[in-house]
Amino acid sequence: MIKNIDHIAIAVSDLEEALSFWRDTLGLKVTHREKVLSQQVDTAFFEIGASKIELVEPTTEDSGIARFVQKKGPSMHHIALEVEDLSSMILELKSKGLHLLNDVPIDGAAGKRAIFIHPNSTGGVLLELYESVDS
Amino acid sequence: MIKNIDHIAIAVSDLEEALSFWRDTLGLKVTHREKVLSQQVDTAFFEIGASKIELVEPTTEDSGIARFVQKKGPSMHHIALEVEDLSSMILELKSKGLHLLNDVPIDGAAGKRAIFIHPNSTGGVLLELYESVDS
Repeated sequence: MIKNIDHIAIAVSDLEEALSFWRDTLGLKVTHREKVLSQQVDTAFFEIGASKIELVEPTTEDSGIARFVQKKGPSMHHIALEVEDLSSMILELKSKGLHLLNDVPIDGAAGKRAIFIHPNSTGGVLLELYESVDS
Repeated sequence: MIKNIDHIAIAVSDLEEALSFWRDTLGLKVTHREKVLSQQVDTAFFEIGASKIELVEPTTEDSGIARFVQKKGPSMHHIALEVEDLSSMILELKSKGLHLLNDVPIDGAAGKRAIFIHPNSTGGVLLELYESVDS
């Protein structure tokens, strides 16, 4: 049911400074930029093969990701896996007692529906499971 | 020069417990198991599309990864990118003043040559760059 590692999200405190490494030093090409007001973040994506690296800078001081950066410093934030049939996966994960941050999928950008599994149910990794919704 | 996200390594304190999540709960298939005595780790890999997730359990208490787990708890440890022409990349990264953990590539398993860039040069992410060596 898991098809692909869609992206690895890296929390940064300064997106321009992070871009100077990933874009200018490593030579990766930014394929998407987006400020997501609802999540209080500014983001940049690099496509590498079938996966992406997402840099995420919090734009306010009181979001979850802002607190993450304050506490841990810039570092890897979550892994996003593309799945088939998210709805049945949610039922299965709930029946196994996993701690989901949301069990009603968030409608994300570009026709994505996503849930997050808390690190205390995965062995320390914040995990996003998402399904593409063709429309 | 960067071709693929080869793997995301997750440091765990108990490989069997971690397998019970990634393999049994998520349904991923273990595609490789290896104890690497030189690095004092026990590992398991899951292939997902063109990338892999690697679970790494330290088997002694005084390796770098053992100290990482002691300090931070089980969590994402590094990202490995497959590159072309690692040698010229090393020269370029050194000329830019980046902190490489090794500038002579380590000969890894399966014909891989790898270097690591310290998180203080990448914005908080331990980064492995590796090149496949066809033989």
